[in-house]
Amino acid sequence: MHANNEVGTIQPVREIALIAKEYGIVLHSDTVQTVGKVPVDVNDLHVDLLSISAHKMYGPKGIGAIYIRKGTNIDALIHGGAQERKNRAGTENIPSIVGFAKAMEIASNEWSDNFEHARLCKELLKAKICGELKNVVVNGGEQDTLPFILNVSLDSSSYEAERESLLLNLDLHGVAVSSGSACTSGSVQPSHVLLAMGRDERSTSTAIRFSFGKFTSVKDVDRAGDVFCSIVRSLPKRPAVVH
Amino acid sequence: MHANNEVGTIQPVREIALIAKEYGIVLHSDTVQTVGKVPVDVNDLHVDLLSISAHKMYGPKGIGAIYIRKGTNIDALIHGGAQERKNRAGTENIPSIVGFAKAMEIASNEWSDNFEHARLCKELLKAKICGELKNVVVNGGEQDTLPFILNVSLDSSSYEAERESLLLNLDLHGVAVSSGSACTSGSVQPSHVLLAMGRDERSTSTAIRFSFGKFTSVKDVDRAGDVFCSIVRSLPKRPAVVH
Repeated sequence: MHANNEVGTIQPVREIALIAKEYGIVLHSDTVQTVGKVPVDVNDLHVDLLSISAHKMYGPKGIGAIYIRKGTNIDALIHGGAQERKNRAGTENIPSIVGFAKAMEIASNEWSDNFEHARLCKELLKAKICGELKNVVVNGGEQDTLPFILNVSLDSSSYEAERESLLLNLDLHGVAVSSGSACTSGSVQPSHVLLAMGRDERSTSTAIRFSFGKFTSVKDVDRAGDVFCSIVRSLPKRPAVVH
Repeated sequence: MHANNEVGTIQPVREIALIAKEYGIVLHSDTVQTVGKVPVDVNDLHVDLLSISAHKMYGPKGIGAIYIRKGTNIDALIHGGAQERKNRAGTENIPSIVGFAKAMEIASNEWSDNFEHARLCKELLKAKICGELKNVVVNGGEQDTLPFILNVSLDSSSYEAERESLLLNLDLHGVAVSSGSACTSGSVQPSHVLLAMGRDERSTSTAIRFSFGKFTSVKDVDRAGDVFCSIVRSLPKRPAVVH
């Protein structure tokens, strides 16, 4: 995974690929979070395979692509017709393929503006939340982290909160956020990403992911921050433990 | 396959399913050519699984569906996220799913009109081609055959013709036809369907598939027939063999 989908951390894929190469290991990277958002160069990354998805760069849903380095052999996943050099049977989705190409073209022109805009949004929201609330944890680092998401959780020793009720409350106030990755929404398992980062299960269970895109306005961010802070302030506090 | 994609023949899926059921065999039917075009009832067909595709009923490309009878267990083809009850990982293509549903709704209202219109188109084209040309073979029967395609080939003992040049010639005159199934276009192999129907390799190699949809006008059909007949008449004839 080139960048993590829950916290935005950019992984050292290049370094991993160079080690893999040394041992003759074929490397695939899921670059769905990065292509169209930051420059990605297959030769610089040294990957053999790379997957991208159109809807992550304002293209149509339901279409993706795989880069296959010359000389890398892959098996077909879907068999049948001879479409796409026998790599994927089925009538090609031409309208979406064209839309995908157009989305990539647009992204290659405006990624830098979008990046700066997201950075601004993230800084604003982080400043507001961390300034107004105590005992809030930002998940994900400062360095080598994408600005398109801000993942925060509440310190479990201070707040009595459930993620689902936080989400519902935010939604009722017109703020659409996610509680983790789309692949696991509806799941009650704590995020394996946050647990691996050393967070405890309880604070992981309050993790909220805010996302910023090119259509997110500064006003939206400001309002989302206000709503979030007001909801968190109204949560029951755990009594301070007296030692 | 509920109806064959090259010649339109409706297969006795119900009869096959009843035999399969007797022996406890799970049966899947590819109903891509029939759902939205003729009434299809999973209980009447007695199938356990059934696949359909939106673009065959004027819906968006790139979206399909599978019917799974309660109690039939299938393995996921694409693993990862928990989407679609863990049967198919990946972000759902909501716009296309909605478009597919709308296409099905429209098809369920107008299938009968579309069927009658295609029947008329097919009869017209068949009458013209068979009336004006000698030694032309219609592939596919009269009974239990869908009216949406007309597959014809030239008798190999009468005409010297190559499918690709026929296609190219028709295309140059603005008539878009297919030389077989989309899955094998570009392939130089003779159609396995026509060979199985007892056609010889040479006449199989001239098979042309005309398709009729709700946007095909009677005028289009008339013109396609004229163009086809004129092209075939200009082909070099094989000398009659004198015994």
